[in-house]
Amino acid sequence: MLNVKRGLKSWKRIVRDEVHNIKPYIPGKPIKEVKEELGLAEVYKLASNENPLGVSPRVKEVLTRETVNINRYPDGASRSLKRSLSDKLGVKEDMIAIGNGSDGLLKVIAEAFLDNNSQAVISYPSFVEYKFVSQLMGTQLIRVWMKNYHQNLEALARGVTSKTKLIFLTNPHNPAGTIFRKDELEQFLSQIPDDVIVVLDEAYHEFVQDESYPDGIEYVKQGYPVIVLRTFSKAYGLAGLRLGYAISAPDIIETLMKVRDPFNVNHLAEKAGQAALEDKDFLEATIRNNEQGKEYLYTELDKIGVGYVPTQANFVLIRTGVDSIKMFKELLKHGVIVRPGKPLGYPHHLRVSIGLPEENEAFIRGLKLTLE
Amino acid sequence: MLNVKRGLKSWKRIVRDEVHNIKPYIPGKPIKEVKEELGLAEVYKLASNENPLGVSPRVKEVLTRETVNINRYPDGASRSLKRSLSDKLGVKEDMIAIGNGSDGLLKVIAEAFLDNNSQAVISYPSFVEYKFVSQLMGTQLIRVWMKNYHQNLEALARGVTSKTKLIFLTNPHNPAGTIFRKDELEQFLSQIPDDVIVVLDEAYHEFVQDESYPDGIEYVKQGYPVIVLRTFSKAYGLAGLRLGYAISAPDIIETLMKVRDPFNVNHLAEKAGQAALEDKDFLEATIRNNEQGKEYLYTELDKIGVGYVPTQANFVLIRTGVDSIKMFKELLKHGVIVRPGKPLGYPHHLRVSIGLPEENEAFIRGLKLTLE
Repeated sequence: MLNVKRGLKSWKRIVRDEVHNIKPYIPGKPIKEVKEELGLAEVYKLASNENPLGVSPRVKEVLTRETVNINRYPDGASRSLKRSLSDKLGVKEDMIAIGNGSDGLLKVIAEAFLDNNSQAVISYPSFVEYKFVSQLMGTQLIRVWMKNYHQNLEALARGVTSKTKLIFLTNPHNPAGTIFRKDELEQFLSQIPDDVIVVLDEAYHEFVQDESYPDGIEYVKQGYPVIVLRTFSKAYGLAGLRLGYAISAPDIIETLMKVRDPFNVNHLAEKAGQAALEDKDFLEATIRNNEQGKEYLYTELDKIGVGYVPTQANFVLIRTGVDSIKMFKELLKHGVIVRPGKPLGYPHHLRVSIGLPEENEAFIRGLKLTLE
Repeated sequence: MLNVKRGLKSWKRIVRDEVHNIKPYIPGKPIKEVKEELGLAEVYKLASNENPLGVSPRVKEVLTRETVNINRYPDGASRSLKRSLSDKLGVKEDMIAIGNGSDGLLKVIAEAFLDNNSQAVISYPSFVEYKFVSQLMGTQLIRVWMKNYHQNLEALARGVTSKTKLIFLTNPHNPAGTIFRKDELEQFLSQIPDDVIVVLDEAYHEFVQDESYPDGIEYVKQGYPVIVLRTFSKAYGLAGLRLGYAISAPDIIETLMKVRDPFNVNHLAEKAGQAALEDKDFLEATIRNNEQGKEYLYTELDKIGVGYVPTQANFVLIRTGVDSIKMFKELLKHGVIVRPGKPLGYPHHLRVSIGLPEENEAFIRGLKLTLE
């Protein structure tokens, strides 16, 4: 028998260099465990930008019906969901790729294009997954600082070199909640060489109220090398099922399809996604709740005199000026889980999801007690 | 505006070389579409080694209960499922990684270890995913031919060079259905350098009846650099939900956790997996049905005089001697979907999943009509 210690040491030699540098993601604790640990009767989770209204009744109905089919493999081509998306978005089915969350698609995109001889351009701060997938493929990241909580598109364009393969944009931005306008995106796209792909992550698309907001899919239709990413995790309330999609030119989509796992999307996600698209009432109620919650939070934060970044998404970046980890822990004692800004690149901010009225109230109550 | 044609050509420059060589997986059609196309009232799918008994009642119950929670992200650490697996398998939770199917874990393993300066050793034929994930990472594949439908462990061991990082073994083998014995595996492991990781895919583990079959987890416990892969897609009947797991040394698992997407497993899969582990009656009924179906198929195939490979799994590799694509199409006309051997490396064979009695009978009926 092999010596355990010897074995465990020597296999490390074969881990890819790129992997050594990755820090494992530390998942948050389930609400149930937080309740037990802190002895709290009620815990409000405003940390992950989930849909506070719960699950659409249509989705529930479809899931109940489809449970009997889960012994069968999913349709690897996600035909029926692609048909629904094609109808809704006015793009052909061969311009759509379905993923295990848009996280899953980001990895597939990195695997398709990035290697250790290339560069990717990202904003700093931005969604942590862009860094993760680039690092995994050994790609050099060119980081461009945010400017007053906005992505600096001019500087991002200047970050492009002959080695650049991808640029990651987020609209609205996470965690700032800000958008760039149509004219800004068009100016940006006109400057980008046509062998650089722009990944345009629109995870919070459905919440945007600003009329100058560009719909990324229009630029795919116009022939720009853009991959638009959307998700069912936010406005559609399916975070637990893992479902996202990409819209791009047929050739780009075909390349992504080569790289993805053949059965990357589970059957219930596909069916729930279709049902969610049909439930317009649920989507409208979600947006309405978000608008009302936003107004409430603005009003209350103004009263307390705490700064924030006006948002186009379903969360607000709040400038407490206090160490975010400390604030996070204090709020947790009051039964409110928010996202501390530190790991997101804003060490004196909190990112707070817009919840139901009682959740928003609990947050404001906790914040007041914490700031006292 | 950018010229569409120019744009679509030039972005191809940035696709990774490794990806150009991958052929996209062509998913089979859903049963419903096959019925409509061929105008058949009944279609029997014996192509994907799914559980013919359907879904465990306990799983259904849990899914009905958990549907209300899918607006929340899954527990990224899959704590409760890991606890259940830990209890069942007698390994600590830090020796378990959960994946989006074992397919998803195979990709994670490749991403952790393989690059374009390394080699992986596989049997030919073997499960197509080993080739896919190795190719994706640019790794050179050393292929070792099967010997009388068995993996040639001696030749596989001889295939190891200083560049070898992974060896993929399958027990039982897919598509042959054969196993290697404890003494063979032990002899093999004693020959393998301790900086080479053996990926031991035990997807069909639960169906094995042969007492000389080795439980891979024992070798992990003994300290060998082995990663055992198991799945909920076969005996547990959860193919549609995508759920698999890996068992290995804590350091190896930690490496895999760095590479996987933080929310790679959906919430319903995690909860269904736990319920499936608890439903011992369903598992027993599954094994019983498989044993009875196997005996029936052996008897009937012997009567017709068609050769087959005795199986330890839930499928039988049948040696028709006829072009497999032709046979596949003929059987389809009789309403039976099987897997043609050609894409699996056995051009004159069929791989037929063991189904319910009426499904097995439909296959035998179709086979007789086809061979007439």
